[in-house]
Amino acid sequence: MTDRPGPSGEDSLIARYFKPLAIDPGAFGLVDDAAVLKARGEDIVVTTDAIVEGVHFLPDDPPDTVARKALRVNLSDLAAKGATTAGFVLTLALRRADDAWLSAFARGLGEDARTFDCPLLGGDTVSTPGPLTVSITAFGRVPAGRMVPRSGARPGDRVMVTGTIGDAAVGLDILTGGPAASALASDAAARDMLIGRYRVPQPRNGLAEAIRTHASGAMDVSDGLAGDLTKLCAASDVSAVIEVPRIPISAAAQGVLAQRAVDIEALISGGDDYEILCTVPDISCAALSAAAAQAGIALTAIGTVIAGSDAPRFLDKEGRELPLARRSYSHF
Amino acid sequence: MTDRPGPSGEDSLIARYFKPLAIDPGAFGLVDDAAVLKARGEDIVVTTDAIVEGVHFLPDDPPDTVARKALRVNLSDLAAKGATTAGFVLTLALRRADDAWLSAFARGLGEDARTFDCPLLGGDTVSTPGPLTVSITAFGRVPAGRMVPRSGARPGDRVMVTGTIGDAAVGLDILTGGPAASALASDAAARDMLIGRYRVPQPRNGLAEAIRTHASGAMDVSDGLAGDLTKLCAASDVSAVIEVPRIPISAAAQGVLAQRAVDIEALISGGDDYEILCTVPDISCAALSAAAAQAGIALTAIGTVIAGSDAPRFLDKEGRELPLARRSYSHF
Repeated sequence: MTDRPGPSGEDSLIARYFKPLAIDPGAFGLVDDAAVLKARGEDIVVTTDAIVEGVHFLPDDPPDTVARKALRVNLSDLAAKGATTAGFVLTLALRRADDAWLSAFARGLGEDARTFDCPLLGGDTVSTPGPLTVSITAFGRVPAGRMVPRSGARPGDRVMVTGTIGDAAVGLDILTGGPAASALASDAAARDMLIGRYRVPQPRNGLAEAIRTHASGAMDVSDGLAGDLTKLCAASDVSAVIEVPRIPISAAAQGVLAQRAVDIEALISGGDDYEILCTVPDISCAALSAAAAQAGIALTAIGTVIAGSDAPRFLDKEGRELPLARRSYSHF
Repeated sequence: MTDRPGPSGEDSLIARYFKPLAIDPGAFGLVDDAAVLKARGEDIVVTTDAIVEGVHFLPDDPPDTVARKALRVNLSDLAAKGATTAGFVLTLALRRADDAWLSAFARGLGEDARTFDCPLLGGDTVSTPGPLTVSITAFGRVPAGRMVPRSGARPGDRVMVTGTIGDAAVGLDILTGGPAASALASDAAARDMLIGRYRVPQPRNGLAEAIRTHASGAMDVSDGLAGDLTKLCAASDVSAVIEVPRIPISAAAQGVLAQRAVDIEALISGGDDYEILCTVPDISCAALSAAAAQAGIALTAIGTVIAGSDAPRFLDKEGRELPLARRSYSHF
């Protein structure tokens, strides 16, 4: 028997849905004010990304995919930086505490936390009159001084990307009733695949260690390949030439392209790919490709880093430069 | 000369307002996807807290106080955990990029980052159709295994608090036109002091090391003294008896109490104090008090930890138990 008063609505929400996820000893079962991350001599890599209802996900996206996307956009940064996952903290701004929604959200989050070996360490749950907002700060580890920077690309390096580019942009077009929706009206499998790529990114954490070993520079593609490569080149003070026909495009997105429902520019300047974009010295390309093959992750060379300060050029199969009006997504 | 395209609105916003704050080498000038926190063998203490317009601050609060509050509610957790500050990451969800607002916000944030020796390491800026939301994850350091937990209180320990309790609750009452506003209609200095306590908490980071050395358990008072002490007792599996007349109340709040515009229950169950609540073995009380005096921080013994599982009791000057209908603020 105890006379302790019951937990507040907020504490009870945390205990019910999130405590089961807090399996790391540094999380203290979510009953303390802070978490502890053991350092063990490595550098701690820190990344933070928020997703907002109506901006980064749609109001009727399933709650478990919202959770997975919120975590995975952060895991994707850790992968690109060559870091192994160490844990994350979550801030959830909710309009109301809806049991069915929270239960599905927590289930998706817990499954991904296990899959990617990235335990929940702590968090904050607040009420908001506005859109649901999920803000995650994720932690990874690298040996001291070994985080793969944006700034390491050197002339002569190969430009490589994982997976396929542009699927999520087409998926969003389908979800919002754009031209791709009609183009794929009779192909449910392609629609589902592309929508899935928008809702649930596939961060390439299985390649993190190989990226750390072999890449000179890297970042994840979150705001569009063209814009993100432009940022990487600027940080490295180099330029690049990309052969557009080499950019890996999924069969589903190829189908939409063939029907001219979207154009290639939309795919390479769309966002939400969450693939790794990296630059790799020639001597390391074979080893990185072998590691990718072993991890079951597609890795494609799409161009070359060159000296200069021009924005990277994207060349079509005739060698003509693709005009890119908008290279990436920007919030403002 | 360069042909690099100009940065996007988002990148330019970050470069203009926040890059000047990113003075730590681990922040990479905010041009990378992640930050690096050097570990040096200590534990990294991680805390995360968000503040939402209309919930944790008012829409017309000055932007620099919004920034300070967002950072300080996190610094307060680090202080209570006995951690020295190491840095923070910021997620800012904005309706629009308003230069005057952002410039004042960044100035306040930068000043506090310097004052508390807690540099900006990274962040994310996103657009939202909803209320302005500032989410911060802050990092501190403690020697391995030395974070001060909620769970360390033992029967016989003294219960102590820094500063004064209830000022922020009265300040919010004034700002929202409650009874305290009329009670202090002719006392601008008291009104300003109490409003200041709501808008700009005074985290006690100067006492962090002494808390780590002398306290058995600690947390910051964010949701109300009564409720937070109840949580600390539950985490420690103890109870406590508090002598209400010993709870430190500022002269300004005393004035409002004397006019019966608010009652003592409102002060001890209101939120936003951001003082340290700690339990201290008898043998360490004098040393902690001396450290507080040296740091210029008021520290008051208000009661005693006892064995048991009852909720802590709050006794008035006749030894009668104060009935507390609501012990703390809860979002849900």
